Amino acid sequence: MTGWQHIAGADDLNLNLILRAEKLIASYIVQTPVLNSPCLDQAVGGASAGTQLWFKCENLQKTGAFKFRGACHALLHLTAEQRQAGVYTVSSGNHGAALAHAGQLLGVPVHVAVPTNAPKVKKQNIARYGAHITEIEPGMAAREAQVAHWQATSAMQFIPPYNHPLIIAGQGTAALELIKSQPELDGILAPLGGGGLLSGTAMIAHSQGIPVWGVEPELAADGAASFKTGSIQPAMPPRSICDGLLTSLGTHTFPVLQDYVSDILVVSDIEVIRAMKALWQSLKVIVEPSSAVVYAAVCKYPELFQGKRLGLILSGGNVDLDRVPWTGE
Amino acid sequence: MTGWQHIAGADDLNLNLILRAEKLIASYIVQTPVLNSPCLDQAVGGASAGTQLWFKCENLQKTGAFKFRGACHALLHLTAEQRQAGVYTVSSGNHGAALAHAGQLLGVPVHVAVPTNAPKVKKQNIARYGAHITEIEPGMAAREAQVAHWQATSAMQFIPPYNHPLIIAGQGTAALELIKSQPELDGILAPLGGGGLLSGTAMIAHSQGIPVWGVEPELAADGAASFKTGSIQPAMPPRSICDGLLTSLGTHTFPVLQDYVSDILVVSDIEVIRAMKALWQSLKVIVEPSSAVVYAAVCKYPELFQGKRLGLILSGGNVDLDRVPWTGE
Repeated sequence: MTGWQHIAGADDLNLNLILRAEKLIASYIVQTPVLNSPCLDQAVGGASAGTQLWFKCENLQKTGAFKFRGACHALLHLTAEQRQAGVYTVSSGNHGAALAHAGQLLGVPVHVAVPTNAPKVKKQNIARYGAHITEIEPGMAAREAQVAHWQATSAMQFIPPYNHPLIIAGQGTAALELIKSQPELDGILAPLGGGGLLSGTAMIAHSQGIPVWGVEPELAADGAASFKTGSIQPAMPPRSICDGLLTSLGTHTFPVLQDYVSDILVVSDIEVIRAMKALWQSLKVIVEPSSAVVYAAVCKYPELFQGKRLGLILSGGNVDLDRVPWTGE
Repeated sequence: MTGWQHIAGADDLNLNLILRAEKLIASYIVQTPVLNSPCLDQAVGGASAGTQLWFKCENLQKTGAFKFRGACHALLHLTAEQRQAGVYTVSSGNHGAALAHAGQLLGVPVHVAVPTNAPKVKKQNIARYGAHITEIEPGMAAREAQVAHWQATSAMQFIPPYNHPLIIAGQGTAALELIKSQPELDGILAPLGGGGLLSGTAMIAHSQGIPVWGVEPELAADGAASFKTGSIQPAMPPRSICDGLLTSLGTHTFPVLQDYVSDILVVSDIEVIRAMKALWQSLKVIVEPSSAVVYAAVCKYPELFQGKRLGLILSGGNVDLDRVPWTGE
C-alpha cells in the first residue's frame, strides 16, 4: 500500500479523512434511505417502551452493500498512472463486487481472486461488473500466495477489503449520512467482520458523543474475544450463516474499536435468521444474514436498548433467493 | 359518501385536489425513495439500449402499500363528529391495513369487513393496526350486505378502496413525488386493479405531458377489456397471483383512464413471478406480485419501452414469506 503514501494524509486515519471522503464519493454512491417500521419498534419490548429504530439501508447501496463506499473512495485516491495499471483484491463477496463496479465506473481494470467456496450469488455479482476473476482455493495460504504473486508480477495496486484508512474512511460515510438524517440518536449498532464498517462508524459516532456497539455471530466471535483479551484473535472456522462477518480484525480497525466501541455483542445464527425474516417482513427490504445481526442484538439485549432511539446499519442485501434460510421451517 | 359533500370540492376530481392532497398528507406518510438498478436497466434490452428505470417504492410506504396515502387523505377530510363516529370498509388486503393505521394515527375507530379467503399475511396486517375485524363470506353479495348493514345501523362513514375522488387524489401523490424526484421521464407505468392508483397517476402525468400505461395480469384483464369496449367490464374469477389487482374498475376511475392512459398492458402470472424475483434480487426490496407487473411489462414490450427513461410505481410489499412463489422451482 505504499503506493498511496503520495496522497497527503491518506494513511492517516482521522475524522477529517471521513468528512472529506463523504464529499469525494457523493456523486458516485447512493445516499441510501433511512427507514423505520412501527412494527419493529413495537416488537422490541412492546408499544409502551418507545424504542425507535432507524435503519440505514446500505443493502440499497450500489452492488448491494456498504463496501462500495470504501472501494470507490480508495480508487478515487489513485494517480492516473495507477488507475491505468489497475487494482486487485481477494474477496469471497461484497468487497469484490464493490471494487469491480467502482473500477467499471472510474475506468480502472479490476482483478479479483475468489475462493472456490464463495456463495454463487456473490461470485455472479463480481462477474456482472466486468472484473477479471481468478479462482483460488479457500483459506489464508492460497489468499496470501495470490496476493504475493500479483505484488511480484504486476504494477497493480492492492485494495484490501477493510484494513486500510481509505477503506475505513469510505465506510464511515454511511454513519455520517445516518446521523445527518437522524441527529437525535442514543446509540448506533453496526455488524462486525473485519471492522472496516464498525471502525468508521465508531469514529463518526464518537465525534458526536453517540455510543456504538458492534455485533457479530456467536460462531465467528473473534471480535468479542479480541475486545476482551486486548489482542487480535484469529478468525473462527467459517460456520456461521453470516458469510460477510467471518474475517479477523485488522491492525487499522482494532485500535479504533478499542478506543471508541462500547461493547461487542454476539447473537446466534437462529436469532439472525429470525431477525432477517422480521426485517424482510416489516421493513420490506432484502437484507443478508450479516446485516440482520444488528436487529437480532436489539431484540436480544433489551436491557441495553429498550426505550432508546437507535441507528442500525444494514450492511448488505446479497442473498441467494433460492436458498432463503427459513424455507421449510 | 354524501357525508363528505360539506367539503368544498371534495367530490370534484381534478388536479388541484391531488396537489392539495400532497400537502395535507405530507407529515403522515413516508416520502418513499425512488430507486434505480443498473442491472435491471441492462436486463431490459442490453447495456446499449440505455433504458433507465426509476422505481417509486410504495412498498416502503407505511403499512407496506400506496393505499395509506388515499386512506389518510380521506380521513383528513372528515369532520370532528365523523372522526368520532368512525369509519368502515370492506377489504381483503392493503386498503384495510392502510385505513386501520390511518385511523390509529388520527384517532378514528376503523371497522374492516374481511373475506374469509383473504391472504393470512394481509389479515394480520389489518389486525396489527388495531382495526375491528368482521369476517364475511367471499364475493360481492356478502360484501354489499355488510356495507348495507353498517350504512343502516351506524353513523360511520364508508371509506371505499378506490372509487372516490379523495382516495384517487391521495394515490396520485405517489406519482407527484416521483416526477419531482425524476423530472425527465418519458413514461410512467402503474399497476391496474380498481384504478385508484392508475387514475391518480395518469392525472398527474398528463399534466406534465408524460404518457402513462396501466398493467394488469392476463388472468384479471377486465381493465384492458373495459378500455377496449369503452364500458366497465366485471372482474374475472380470482385466479391470478396478483391478489391486489382482482377488482373491477369504478365509475370515478374508469373515465380518467379513458382520457389519460395510453394503453392497458397485460402480463402472465409466470412473467410476474419472474419479474418479482428480479426485483427482489437486484433492487433489494420486497415487492408483492401486484407490484411486479410493471417491471414484467417493461420486459415484455421492448418495442414500447426500450431506450426510455421510465417511472415504475411499485405499489406494495405485503407478501407471505413462507410462500415465496419460486420456492421449489
